[in-house]
Amino acid sequence: MGYSQDGLSCPIPHALPARITMQHGGGGRAMQRLIRDLFARHLDNGALQASRDAACLVLAAGRIAFSTDSFVVRPVEFPGGDVGSLAVHGTVNDLAMAGATPKYLSAGFILEEGLPLEVLDRVVRSMREAADRAGVSVVTGDTKVIERVHGDGLIINTSGIGSIDHRLELGPGAVRAGDAILVNGDLGRHGIAVMAARERLEFEPPVVSDSAPLAAVVADLLSAGIRIRGMRDCTRGGLAAALNEIAGDAGLTFEVDERAIPVSEQVRGACEILGLNPFHVACEGRFLAVVAEDDADRALRILESHAVSATHPAAIGRVLPRGTVPVQLRSAIGVTRVLEQPSGEQLPRIC
Amino acid sequence: MGYSQDGLSCPIPHALPARITMQHGGGGRAMQRLIRDLFARHLDNGALQASRDAACLVLAAGRIAFSTDSFVVRPVEFPGGDVGSLAVHGTVNDLAMAGATPKYLSAGFILEEGLPLEVLDRVVRSMREAADRAGVSVVTGDTKVIERVHGDGLIINTSGIGSIDHRLELGPGAVRAGDAILVNGDLGRHGIAVMAARERLEFEPPVVSDSAPLAAVVADLLSAGIRIRGMRDCTRGGLAAALNEIAGDAGLTFEVDERAIPVSEQVRGACEILGLNPFHVACEGRFLAVVAEDDADRALRILESHAVSATHPAAIGRVLPRGTVPVQLRSAIGVTRVLEQPSGEQLPRIC
Repeated sequence: MGYSQDGLSCPIPHALPARITMQHGGGGRAMQRLIRDLFARHLDNGALQASRDAACLVLAAGRIAFSTDSFVVRPVEFPGGDVGSLAVHGTVNDLAMAGATPKYLSAGFILEEGLPLEVLDRVVRSMREAADRAGVSVVTGDTKVIERVHGDGLIINTSGIGSIDHRLELGPGAVRAGDAILVNGDLGRHGIAVMAARERLEFEPPVVSDSAPLAAVVADLLSAGIRIRGMRDCTRGGLAAALNEIAGDAGLTFEVDERAIPVSEQVRGACEILGLNPFHVACEGRFLAVVAEDDADRALRILESHAVSATHPAAIGRVLPRGTVPVQLRSAIGVTRVLEQPSGEQLPRIC
Repeated sequence: MGYSQDGLSCPIPHALPARITMQHGGGGRAMQRLIRDLFARHLDNGALQASRDAACLVLAAGRIAFSTDSFVVRPVEFPGGDVGSLAVHGTVNDLAMAGATPKYLSAGFILEEGLPLEVLDRVVRSMREAADRAGVSVVTGDTKVIERVHGDGLIINTSGIGSIDHRLELGPGAVRAGDAILVNGDLGRHGIAVMAARERLEFEPPVVSDSAPLAAVVADLLSAGIRIRGMRDCTRGGLAAALNEIAGDAGLTFEVDERAIPVSEQVRGACEILGLNPFHVACEGRFLAVVAEDDADRALRILESHAVSATHPAAIGRVLPRGTVPVQLRSAIGVTRVLEQPSGEQLPRIC
């Protein structure tokens, strides 16, 4: 069914021109070919195939989570990932943090004129692989082209729908004094991996991004009945932002132990060279979970059972009654200082 | 509840700095303030307030539509709208074209360093007003900052969820020979309005964008039992792209009558000056509906009853059995020629 609208219906990738042009965003034949030969080929699934303006989906009744995130990372490919897998993980993780099971993603591609088609091809393939691993489908999409700046830019917005199948009320209102504060692994690898790729810094061995989907481990925590009070992924602003946001919203004080916070020697060294605070560096596969004190050990064992959190899950602190600041950091020698919300951007364009 | 995390909790808009900086995308205090003092202030609603990573929503069981679109328009403000209202209308209309009732939107803002805050403030306010008029809520959002190019860029991705409450199967498979082809108004005003604003062309009177929400008129067509076979909004690639896509997918031939296609004198004149084909120019409040022949008159009366389609709704042609081309245009003197899918982009960055 359907006409060959251009006299050429050859779906061979090498029939694509080598770089993105303004024509690819124009709604005409060039865009149709790009969608058919690249996006549809890699992301192929029934809902996407059937969708022109919108995907039609069937959902069971109940609570859903809905989230959106745009991913602006330079370079678009880095050790341990690329903007395609990152865009899947980021939105899957936002849904997981709301206690939802991620189901469907949209993908809005904003392509810079001059972007090599082979880069786009790799990124979209990586996106599909990440979606498969995370158990979600990309069901609807859009493509726009913006004028050339460096000729290598590729921004992806993903929005996601997840189903909420439990009855827990997660959120700052549920946090109480005495709760334990956990992280699922060592911090800062994503930000340092991207920065190193951008600045052509060589670490030996290379720092590899922690970008990964968190939905499966969160689902296991929930189904094991861990009393999770709140979760936050440590993305922009890193651990410091995640701690400050939950503590600030809860109106309580979080105390964390500097020695207990896992940071690899490599990331620590890179941060010293670059003048960065590792607690401010973005991750894309790390999250903070505030859980009932009595459930902390059991939660750590569940974290250890998943590859994404097997290496260095840790209990890093506890919730105190409201003090004078949202987050305090206890140092190795027992001195307590404020761990502030980062003021702005330490590492631009890494997530 | 909550700390004042920066010692300054003054929500007065003039406390905002005058332009967007990279700090506003960093996940720290500058971003928190932007979210609180601008996005949350204008878009305020319960779901958005409660959402950090994702909005939690309750949906009735059944079919939903899910759609995404990124809006890249230069200038961001133009006669009859701006990128904020456009981003609401575009996704609301994509959902409406799928026969869905739009409910929830996400908003992903990609801000160019240097963007004046007052422009962002106007655009977000306009977005809220458009959402209110269209009966949707912006329930979750994200903000990123990209490096300066012209210092005036603002891209908005909106994704949307709508509920499908009818049992019609819309789509190219439902189209049959004999069906009538309708449009809801005169074509090309949006593209010409944006182009005129960009190139500082003055038309007297000015050409005003047709950007508008189509969900209410589509809902009326559906509830009146009009046998709609398929709908497509005439956005990128204009009427020609919409006709070619439906006809191509259906594997039938659409014949349209050039004299019946409504185009204002102004748009016709502007297209002549600019060397454009008005059937290729994007609209954001115009759609093509293929309906059962017997329902065409009743459908036109419903179109006339809505402001968005009151002026020049028209039956422009009919569906023929499969011929040699997807779309043929019958001219004033009775000559038939091919109306091709546009090849690329006639008017960049207008939607």
